[in-house]
Amino acid sequence: MIQTVKVDLGDRSYDILVGENLISGAMLALDPIVNGKKCHVITDSNVGPLYFDAVSSALTSANSTGVSQSVNPAGEQHKTLASVGGFCSDMVAAGLDRKSLIVALGGGVPGDMAGFSAACYMRGIDFIQVPTSLLAMVDSSVGGKTGVDLPEGKNLVGAFWQPRLVLIDTSVLNTLPDREVRCGLAEIVKYGVIKDEPFFSKLEQSTDRLNSLDLEFYADIIAHCCRIKAEVVSCDEKESGLRAILNYGHTFGHAIEAVTNFSIGHGEGVAIGMCMAADLAVRLGMMTASAAERQEKLLTALKLPTRISDCDPAAVVSAMYKDKKTANGKVVFILPLGIGMVSIEKGVDMEIVKYVVEGRCD
Amino acid sequence: MIQTVKVDLGDRSYDILVGENLISGAMLALDPIVNGKKCHVITDSNVGPLYFDAVSSALTSANSTGVSQSVNPAGEQHKTLASVGGFCSDMVAAGLDRKSLIVALGGGVPGDMAGFSAACYMRGIDFIQVPTSLLAMVDSSVGGKTGVDLPEGKNLVGAFWQPRLVLIDTSVLNTLPDREVRCGLAEIVKYGVIKDEPFFSKLEQSTDRLNSLDLEFYADIIAHCCRIKAEVVSCDEKESGLRAILNYGHTFGHAIEAVTNFSIGHGEGVAIGMCMAADLAVRLGMMTASAAERQEKLLTALKLPTRISDCDPAAVVSAMYKDKKTANGKVVFILPLGIGMVSIEKGVDMEIVKYVVEGRCD
Repeated sequence: MIQTVKVDLGDRSYDILVGENLISGAMLALDPIVNGKKCHVITDSNVGPLYFDAVSSALTSANSTGVSQSVNPAGEQHKTLASVGGFCSDMVAAGLDRKSLIVALGGGVPGDMAGFSAACYMRGIDFIQVPTSLLAMVDSSVGGKTGVDLPEGKNLVGAFWQPRLVLIDTSVLNTLPDREVRCGLAEIVKYGVIKDEPFFSKLEQSTDRLNSLDLEFYADIIAHCCRIKAEVVSCDEKESGLRAILNYGHTFGHAIEAVTNFSIGHGEGVAIGMCMAADLAVRLGMMTASAAERQEKLLTALKLPTRISDCDPAAVVSAMYKDKKTANGKVVFILPLGIGMVSIEKGVDMEIVKYVVEGRCD
Repeated sequence: MIQTVKVDLGDRSYDILVGENLISGAMLALDPIVNGKKCHVITDSNVGPLYFDAVSSALTSANSTGVSQSVNPAGEQHKTLASVGGFCSDMVAAGLDRKSLIVALGGGVPGDMAGFSAACYMRGIDFIQVPTSLLAMVDSSVGGKTGVDLPEGKNLVGAFWQPRLVLIDTSVLNTLPDREVRCGLAEIVKYGVIKDEPFFSKLEQSTDRLNSLDLEFYADIIAHCCRIKAEVVSCDEKESGLRAILNYGHTFGHAIEAVTNFSIGHGEGVAIGMCMAADLAVRLGMMTASAAERQEKLLTALKLPTRISDCDPAAVVSAMYKDKKTANGKVVFILPLGIGMVSIEKGVDMEIVKYVVEGRCD
């Protein structure tokens, strides 16, 4: 069964398809986008060897006039402008023009880079997302945020550029390392906290199905997360307001990733970051301690970290100032008011923030 | 006297101001854009030492909260993704956020790179153009095309990103090397050929005023060219059709620049390219030989090259396939039907193209 989630963005609207074995089974959806075009797959050294052949066959079946690829070394440290330059050179060599198509195949890192390559190759061409990590399925592949890192911080260079289609093949989760599944679960919990108490409650009751990688259940969960994200992105594509709620846990999380040199994964950083944000909300009298405990309990049941060791709290706070959401030097926080609702807060006393960070550092 | 040209692009509309001593005299226009913001000037080693202080003073007078700069080595060979990455790092260090402003100060190279930096820094911030070369004044600073080069060719990576304001201070032409003035004149002649016979005729009658750098006359000429460009760009911002006419002479010109390793300047390449395009049009029976001669005569009177030496015609033709306007492998040509009108042509016999290129090679 294929579930379809529509992302409504006027003439840039697109569908997210979710289902098992979709890579080989989505020709009907691919054909109108791929037919008669050269396609270039951007992937990494983990995912390419596993799925490039299947993707290439699917593109050829959908009447692509030629499929080429760039395979980047896997890892956040390779999410650079230099990598994007290399992909663009590969595309020139493969003869891609403004009518050609890029296919993002992989987790958030290849997805963000492929999207940014699409945004800027010849000033912008079409692309589709084939996310292979749970994190990319529920978050980064949807909504059009693309980009690369700078030595100074994550995603500091990029573009808003929407895909033409997102193909989520849940069967690829079978090859995903367990730690990566956990990272995706952090973003899934996030959707419950920011916008959907019943969904959060469903997750609480289903930790066994989540921990045992029940793919049928995952298809529903993923589609639901995409629906929430699509709704938020449709209201505020360029993050002038509402969309910032999707960054719940991320202001802290990105800083944690940065100061640990990315030994903490993105989803792990978000899990710890959500705990810090909840602590801050409790400290500021915005949320009850019991709601914060409820969040921490679910994260723990999903085997996600809620504390950080060997870390300098001052460095975390300092790294937060590099967040893109700072406005005129003020760090912006997304803080929960309870399970299912968050508020966007500016001007929080950074001494209290530091105190809260310290409380989560061992 | 300040002339204002409006570029009509809905909520991304902006003004082009043209006049003498505008850098210090445009505070009224700058204030609403600059007030309360950090500004970062992107310039090069030729222009920065001449005009950064004046621009910085103007921004401070318009209530900027801080002015920083990146100075790139001058030259097309530095128009790279790596340079843009460096600017973005400088901006992080200077504390620029999504509400900050980039100022492009210089010719086409810093202008294109500053615009692309604005397009992708934190996924897009505002910028203004302060073009200091004649070429940038009449062409690259207007219309929102931004980008950098790849080893494989010019402007292969970039974005459509409109400035908030274009400030054209004609007095800076006094410090512009003579060869650069000639390069700008090639683009000025282009506007006459593609769209405006009376304007072409005015140029023919005014070669003395053009060659003697009569600044009052230049202000009129520049404003007129901007008006033509604004009209075309308003009709077709993303170059899906009409806008391609602005590339008259450029398909040949870019190829000439590339095969000569940029020893031929952009405007010189365009001048030779326009002659080749006219030869091709004559050869294909689309235009009279006398119209082609009229164009060549004006270019010669403005001391622009119309032929190229030490050049392999096959290499020029081969380089043309890397043009962004190729569609499914076909090179697209903008060919004149007479002075004041061009046609967009696909599927021209490349053997005839090669013959025409050979005819202009010594």
